[in-house]
Amino acid sequence: MAEEKMNHRDEAVIVLKEDAKRILQLIKVQMDNLTLPQCPAYEEVLDTQMYGLSREINFAVRLGLIEQEEGKKLLQTLEKELSTLHELSMNKQ
Amino acid sequence: MAEEKMNHRDEAVIVLKEDAKRILQLIKVQMDNLTLPQCPAYEEVLDTQMYGLSREINFAVRLGLIEQEEGKKLLQTLEKELSTLHELSMNKQ
Repeated sequence: MAEEKMNHRDEAVIVLKEDAKRILQLIKVQMDNLTLPQCPAYEEVLDTQMYGLSREINFAVRLGLIEQEEGKKLLQTLEKELSTLHELSMNKQ
Repeated sequence: MAEEKMNHRDEAVIVLKEDAKRILQLIKVQMDNLTLPQCPAYEEVLDTQMYGLSREINFAVRLGLIEQEEGKKLLQTLEKELSTLHELSMNKQ
């Protein structure tokens, strides 16, 4: 039983980190090719994606698959990475 | 082990159905008190909520907690209920 629980927990963290990586990648591609960070479309895409991930994390917390603190850290890490990316992009212009 | 797996699956379905119910309730309150279904704010709230739920369902499917077909049915049921609600609200006006 404990093993099975561990498996779902491990999986949950892997899937959530995959999604965080996917958002970062999406924003990178957008910055490199399409829109400027000041563009409302960029903000909207980012907001939607962050909202989607926060809902997934909230769902995982409610199922007891991850700790609330762990979920919060995951979002904060992504936010920091996005902020670094944003700064780099601003400096390039 | 099988029992533990069953527990997470049952929980996942319960949590997802709770969220579907919450969306329906939110839209009901909005229709009764605040905005007309034609209002863009209403559409936006609904779109955001449906997107959030679809992300939770997608996450549960990827973890193997629910079947893809089950997730699809859950969304379709909610869409039908929202559509009925919308029609009732239109007839009242």
